[in-house]
Amino acid sequence: MFSKILIANRGEVAVRVIRACKEMGIETVAVYSKADRDALHVEMADEAYCIGGALVKDSYLNMDVILTVAEKTGAEAIHPGYGMLSENPEFAKKCRESGIALISPGEEVMRNMGQKEIARKIAKSADVPVTPGSDILTDSSDVLCRAKEIGYPVILKARAGGGGKGIRVVREEKEILSAFEQVKKEARSSFADDGVFMEKYLENVKHVEVQIIADKNGKVLILGDRDCSVQRKNQKLIEECPAPVLSQELRIKMHEAARRLAAKVGYVTVGTVEFLVKDDKFYFMEMNTRLQVEHSVTEMVCGIDIVEWQIRTAAGVELPFKQEEIASSRHAIECRICAESSKDFKPSTGKVELLHIPGGVDVRFDSALYQSCTVSPFYDSMLGKLIVCSDTRDGAIRKMKSALSEFVLLGVDNNRDMHMKFMENGRFVVGNYDTGICQKVL
Amino acid sequence: MFSKILIANRGEVAVRVIRACKEMGIETVAVYSKADRDALHVEMADEAYCIGGALVKDSYLNMDVILTVAEKTGAEAIHPGYGMLSENPEFAKKCRESGIALISPGEEVMRNMGQKEIARKIAKSADVPVTPGSDILTDSSDVLCRAKEIGYPVILKARAGGGGKGIRVVREEKEILSAFEQVKKEARSSFADDGVFMEKYLENVKHVEVQIIADKNGKVLILGDRDCSVQRKNQKLIEECPAPVLSQELRIKMHEAARRLAAKVGYVTVGTVEFLVKDDKFYFMEMNTRLQVEHSVTEMVCGIDIVEWQIRTAAGVELPFKQEEIASSRHAIECRICAESSKDFKPSTGKVELLHIPGGVDVRFDSALYQSCTVSPFYDSMLGKLIVCSDTRDGAIRKMKSALSEFVLLGVDNNRDMHMKFMENGRFVVGNYDTGICQKVL
Repeated sequence: MFSKILIANRGEVAVRVIRACKEMGIETVAVYSKADRDALHVEMADEAYCIGGALVKDSYLNMDVILTVAEKTGAEAIHPGYGMLSENPEFAKKCRESGIALISPGEEVMRNMGQKEIARKIAKSADVPVTPGSDILTDSSDVLCRAKEIGYPVILKARAGGGGKGIRVVREEKEILSAFEQVKKEARSSFADDGVFMEKYLENVKHVEVQIIADKNGKVLILGDRDCSVQRKNQKLIEECPAPVLSQELRIKMHEAARRLAAKVGYVTVGTVEFLVKDDKFYFMEMNTRLQVEHSVTEMVCGIDIVEWQIRTAAGVELPFKQEEIASSRHAIECRICAESSKDFKPSTGKVELLHIPGGVDVRFDSALYQSCTVSPFYDSMLGKLIVCSDTRDGAIRKMKSALSEFVLLGVDNNRDMHMKFMENGRFVVGNYDTGICQKVL
Repeated sequence: MFSKILIANRGEVAVRVIRACKEMGIETVAVYSKADRDALHVEMADEAYCIGGALVKDSYLNMDVILTVAEKTGAEAIHPGYGMLSENPEFAKKCRESGIALISPGEEVMRNMGQKEIARKIAKSADVPVTPGSDILTDSSDVLCRAKEIGYPVILKARAGGGGKGIRVVREEKEILSAFEQVKKEARSSFADDGVFMEKYLENVKHVEVQIIADKNGKVLILGDRDCSVQRKNQKLIEECPAPVLSQELRIKMHEAARRLAAKVGYVTVGTVEFLVKDDKFYFMEMNTRLQVEHSVTEMVCGIDIVEWQIRTAAGVELPFKQEEIASSRHAIECRICAESSKDFKPSTGKVELLHIPGGVDVRFDSALYQSCTVSPFYDSMLGKLIVCSDTRDGAIRKMKSALSEFVLLGVDNNRDMHMKFMENGRFVVGNYDTGICQKVL
């Protein structure tokens, strides 16, 4: 097992990983930007080093500086968290060359799954259903031709995209060429890779994902599924485990598809296979080769510490669990608490004037917030995750309402009240909602 | 099911009960003293009424005022919490006469179990082992005579005592008569009942208790056991579930003894049978006919919300669980965070200047604290309970160390550092400790 880990991230996920390390008896090294001098992850780690300016390109995305800190401090492994460098195969390569373990499924899997059109091909070869789509688009006539074949609406996607960036829905032929150019441009600037492909766009689908964990011996375990259909502008807001209203037959098929894909690519550590679900059919969307924000709902239901086992499997430890032991009938819900205006959803900043965190049975708040801390404009607006678990979905909704009503965060505009709206919304309560729910509720 | 419950308590337990009610969709009525105007339980309840002065006798122990509030607000039941009126059979009687349900096993069981020498007799009749002891002592010659029979050291106990009050250990004959008079006096003033009896005093024992829950149909479930041997002056400081280093044989015997006792008295709702354990033998100490502070460690291990099921069973709902489903191999530890000087353990008071609550997987903090609240001198010094759960006892200790290191409470002296000492103490870590541990660690 690793004795020292560098956490190449900030905020909630850095705190989450440091906690797991502490509990495992692993020393921790934090890195931070000049804007994060007073951040909680800096306070909590055994060592912490400033690695550059506030902009992520100057600090948290600066691979060479991060690797230098890892080498100087004797860290044997790097945990990339989510976002930042977590899905960057170049970083995986540099880590390997430096003799430092990256807690990930490895460069090749990251590279293949990071390129969406390659991921689609691999999925197809593993007998995992995909939506109709194209290869990388070459020129205008290729774009027009493929769109006609597939049928509008279509969605253009940067092959290197992620996190809701580098994608665009096109409903009519007259819009497609300009959209194609825009996505190409966004992809070039965001991901330094302007490869774009096209898929049939399915509207009002459910976004369901399957959590997997695998060890170096090829043992793949399915840790259930999650519904993440409550999204605004492709950003997830609320997640639940398990996905509600899936038929048992469909659920088993999706789990087995995720297992086949993981086995096909020789997956190790934790990952997520994301599917679109419509009319009792499912289609592969992408595989995330990292820890996900919403892993915590799965932890509450399965009783397995996913970060702990991510680290262990990365270190070569075998999974001691049996698939049949993982079943649980509990239900968990997560609300992402974001710093944003309740009027226009624009990111907000400021000093936390009062923070009060809910408590009680199976209520969890994962965050890097603390009383009087400052929320800066430089990073993601997600401040924390409020997670609850109960014996039933109805119980979890009631518990979330109770927890939200206890939660106080003054000084920084945030979306607490928006979450309460969802918990009280008839569509959400029934459970049979899709990605269209956000427009209906907000 | 009840639709409205009055909580006749304050602090952590009032908050705990309100949370359970909210999750069950039950309306809540809080009562508070003049010193508790700004208390968290007042803020959280649907309604709240001031019932008197700061001293508990003027407010939280004022049965008639509490019952008047219950009647006026239409509360169908009263939850007494722990401490305060929770084991007072007179209050149970008054509730019954007012047609309001008291969430308890009922007046008769409370009365019998509250009188320690009657409880011993009932335990004996249920074939539950008790230590050698006397009936209620009559006069000096009776005291001297019984002590000689039983053999020193002996312990004098007020039959109406509890919470570590009204008890005294006597090691030599020359001390016994003055001790007897003192305990009588203390019992008279604290419990308005000067009946005192005597037991053989077992030194350096383990304090192990069995959590039970029972429904009106006579179904009794055992929710495992807890070790509460870390005590200072008969006040519990740290509890864990399950009790470490008990042989499986002894554990089963104790569980079955608790079950027999509960069945014998027709127990309903939750309760705890406390035992002393020494040299692989166990002896009945007392039965607590209420929710206990440390119920939360059992909740973490068993996955059952004990307060929720306390309320349900009090309302006549049948227990849907099977005994064999309750088994769990997890381990939970609780540290009671108390407002006290780290030097002389005297209660401390003041304004909370900074509060930072630990988070993460299976970390729970149950408390009525909030940023900038004031800790007054009028009530129990316990401010909150830090509870963790893990797959193993070692994992739980590491998690508690991590959680304690995150916990910040400035402005009010408290025992966080003392708990860290225990978590790092060899005797505690090995698990084979007894009530003598406190003297050795502190």
